[in-house]
Amino acid sequence: DLVRQLKASKESNEKIDEEVSRLLALKATLGGDATPANQKFTLKTRKGTRDYAPQQMTLRQGVLDKIVQVFKRHGGEAIDTPVFELKEVLTGKYGEDSKLIYDLKDQGGEILSMRYDLTVPLARYLAMNKISSIKRYHIAKVYRRDNPAMTRGRYREFYQCDFDIAGTYDPMLADAECVKIVAEILNTLDIGDYVIKLNHRQLLDGMFEACGVPANCFRAICSAVDKLDKSPWEDVRKEMVEEKGLDGATADKIGEYVRLSGGADLVEQLLADPKLKAVPNAVKGLEGMQLLLKYCALFGLEQRISFDLSLARGLDYYTGVIYEGVLKVDPSPAGSPAKSSQNGEQAMEQGGTVGSVAGGGRYDNLVGMFDPRGKAVPCVGVSIGVERIFSVLEAKFAASKVKLRTSDVEVYVASAHKGLHEQRLRVLNQLWDAGIKAEHSYKLNPKLLAQLQHCEEHQIPLAIVLGDSELAQGIVKLREVTTRQESSVPLVELPDEIRRRLQK
Amino acid sequence: DLVRQLKASKESNEKIDEEVSRLLALKATLGGDATPANQKFTLKTRKGTRDYAPQQMTLRQGVLDKIVQVFKRHGGEAIDTPVFELKEVLTGKYGEDSKLIYDLKDQGGEILSMRYDLTVPLARYLAMNKISSIKRYHIAKVYRRDNPAMTRGRYREFYQCDFDIAGTYDPMLADAECVKIVAEILNTLDIGDYVIKLNHRQLLDGMFEACGVPANCFRAICSAVDKLDKSPWEDVRKEMVEEKGLDGATADKIGEYVRLSGGADLVEQLLADPKLKAVPNAVKGLEGMQLLLKYCALFGLEQRISFDLSLARGLDYYTGVIYEGVLKVDPSPAGSPAKSSQNGEQAMEQGGTVGSVAGGGRYDNLVGMFDPRGKAVPCVGVSIGVERIFSVLEAKFAASKVKLRTSDVEVYVASAHKGLHEQRLRVLNQLWDAGIKAEHSYKLNPKLLAQLQHCEEHQIPLAIVLGDSELAQGIVKLREVTTRQESSVPLVELPDEIRRRLQK
Repeated sequence: DLVRQLKASKESNEKIDEEVSRLLALKATLGGDATPANQKFTLKTRKGTRDYAPQQMTLRQGVLDKIVQVFKRHGGEAIDTPVFELKEVLTGKYGEDSKLIYDLKDQGGEILSMRYDLTVPLARYLAMNKISSIKRYHIAKVYRRDNPAMTRGRYREFYQCDFDIAGTYDPMLADAECVKIVAEILNTLDIGDYVIKLNHRQLLDGMFEACGVPANCFRAICSAVDKLDKSPWEDVRKEMVEEKGLDGATADKIGEYVRLSGGADLVEQLLADPKLKAVPNAVKGLEGMQLLLKYCALFGLEQRISFDLSLARGLDYYTGVIYEGVLKVDPSPAGSPAKSSQNGEQAMEQGGTVGSVAGGGRYDNLVGMFDPRGKAVPCVGVSIGVERIFSVLEAKFAASKVKLRTSDVEVYVASAHKGLHEQRLRVLNQLWDAGIKAEHSYKLNPKLLAQLQHCEEHQIPLAIVLGDSELAQGIVKLREVTTRQESSVPLVELPDEIRRRLQK
Repeated sequence: DLVRQLKASKESNEKIDEEVSRLLALKATLGGDATPANQKFTLKTRKGTRDYAPQQMTLRQGVLDKIVQVFKRHGGEAIDTPVFELKEVLTGKYGEDSKLIYDLKDQGGEILSMRYDLTVPLARYLAMNKISSIKRYHIAKVYRRDNPAMTRGRYREFYQCDFDIAGTYDPMLADAECVKIVAEILNTLDIGDYVIKLNHRQLLDGMFEACGVPANCFRAICSAVDKLDKSPWEDVRKEMVEEKGLDGATADKIGEYVRLSGGADLVEQLLADPKLKAVPNAVKGLEGMQLLLKYCALFGLEQRISFDLSLARGLDYYTGVIYEGVLKVDPSPAGSPAKSSQNGEQAMEQGGTVGSVAGGGRYDNLVGMFDPRGKAVPCVGVSIGVERIFSVLEAKFAASKVKLRTSDVEVYVASAHKGLHEQRLRVLNQLWDAGIKAEHSYKLNPKLLAQLQHCEEHQIPLAIVLGDSELAQGIVKLREVTTRQESSVPLVELPDEIRRRLQK
């Protein structure tokens, strides 16, 4: 009704904004969903976000360290960009997913959005600084407001670990290295068997053309194909025909192709396909795949990769090779269906199927979109979906019942009796100044048993026990926590003796 | 009109949401406010934010690693929290600075704000998870919209490195350890001479009471005292009298106290001060200071600390000891006044004076503000202002003309002539699989000279030069880049030989 009025009168955006803000103000007055004063304060993190406790941080840091090691093995340099970008930087880069971008409130200044991935900020960075070649990695959180129908367990704040190679190079050399990086990371993380699916956007476009899809529908149809890992072909076909207006026969032709997967032999077969042979884009895409498969074989990846025509990837900006690392078996332990379904949701966020843990591809035109003269910097990259990997490892860990250490304390300084807190501070000071990781109770007169229990609970390897009679002789007791063996050590030799014990 | 209709008919929020989303959809159809096609696109990062290039990242990572080392030496465990919190979590925690909080746009959901520091999220985390003791560190970016009059060079997105000790303990043991941590960090970073100023909120309140400040003005007057590191006493007095309605004689009495600084002797002197002696808060604060100074002396900090009555700290939530680490001399090289002024601005952001690089204190009531039953968890902590430290080190580094390595590549795989790219990929694969950091040109036939120049420019220690005649014999040339010495190595022995060379 109002909408119709506005449409009819061709009202400006300003008028609409005004109405919207009036409505929102009214909503606030009526008591919106944002904590009116009379509502109890609810203690929680924002929907779709979570805290990381020390145990989770230890696992997370272990995963990130391993990933960085692989990135550095391939010569990656680190960069960092702000968590928010000018809104216009993100506009028009993500296709149908743009609705998931978080905007900041206009508090009188520039209009800002939270970064949605690390790829667009990289492209902005390269164009802004006129950098035409770099191998960079970037590990940081990105933000996506998933739509209300898809909220089950999907994180709205999650880490991405990206490696990208920018520069004008010969075909497929950098692309194949990105596939190698995915394989190295999945090998080192030891989270189960996986396959890396490969495809090529030019081949997809050529295939669409060969099937009779109008050129202006390529991206929309590509986006429908992208859903094949979550939905059966019937649903995807329905989307193509009913929502995107594709002719049924055309959809069926697409359906024939997207069920194909294989290796170099499939490329040969498609190069001989009369429909595809006639379309230059399809031929170029297939020739690219041929070269990529050859390089991947040189990298020892033949058993790890699969050329898969159903792989489409959601984002608009890809122009060449696309790939996705997929776990073959869901490694979550059985019996935790809620957890497992969460993982699945998050995995979809990251890449495609339940087991998708890495994805990427070539995007040769994105940097040019930011350059005032349109100067292109060809890029290819990969993003590791670490949230899925964290979940897998957390579940593994919970099942193993091993207690992870969350601090690195090497020595605990204990009092055998009352009145020794100043002595403890002196000894601690000596240890800290020698670079030894040490702690004590922040109580003046803690019980000895409580102190020793703390050491056992926290798996601290050594304890020093102070007592007046020993201190009078300039010595302390050094105790190995697991064996409970004690020996006397002169105070002056303490740091050296501790280092000796820790090296054992 | 519509608003009035809705109000009149007491429409539900759902109805309003519906209307809002219809209006927004219409707006999108008409072409929204996001980058009109005819507007020039400006390439920049958001005001007050910046990118970190690889060189800066290398410096930054070095600083953060050293800080983490100190935190771990004191038994710190890591946690992480989301970058945004529910707005109500931040409300009423920051006093006059609350206006600097970034809000997110209401896109239909909870009202969110970007974290302003890491302390309030910690308190929320502790209350939410009912944790009553932890030693945690947290290194993450925080967000502050500084007001337009103070924009020169101050970052709106900046790192904080926080260490906090939560738990019910005996007085000053944890507090003194936080002071020790500041000293260890400033020592290890080697950025010049420094002093750690100490004061106590209870003493400040007692002093205000003794001078005749009404109790409901304590926080406002405290906030004025906090400006003494940037403004002369006259200006602060003016703020007290003209803006905050304090009686001139009262202000003058405060002026007498806040010019005092010293050590244990000053505490003695103030304990004997007739005005202060009569105020229990002042006596308690002084006794606390006495104990703190004693513990600090046991930690070898006597020459590093100064009890300073002008130290107030801006934030509302402190309840006990407060401290601030201040560089004595601005270590920025002369001749870069613009840079230097930037640093100063940023430093003020972080803590107080131009050279302020760390700050913190005790806040015993913050966690209780989040607990439904008001259960308190006493806390004390410290925050390192690393942006200032990065700037100092960047300036030092620029002056030294040393070129920092930004990648860790150990070996470059080069071709001596055309047609060897597949051989390069084979050798690279061998090296990567052996865990060696290696790279090559992404060109099929790069010139040998260009490849060797790349090694020298990027300080890569070793190069492998492939040639058909050597490969036929199963050997390659291994070249030490700086000496340019070459020797022949059998391909099968390459990884071991490289490791030997790198260990030298």
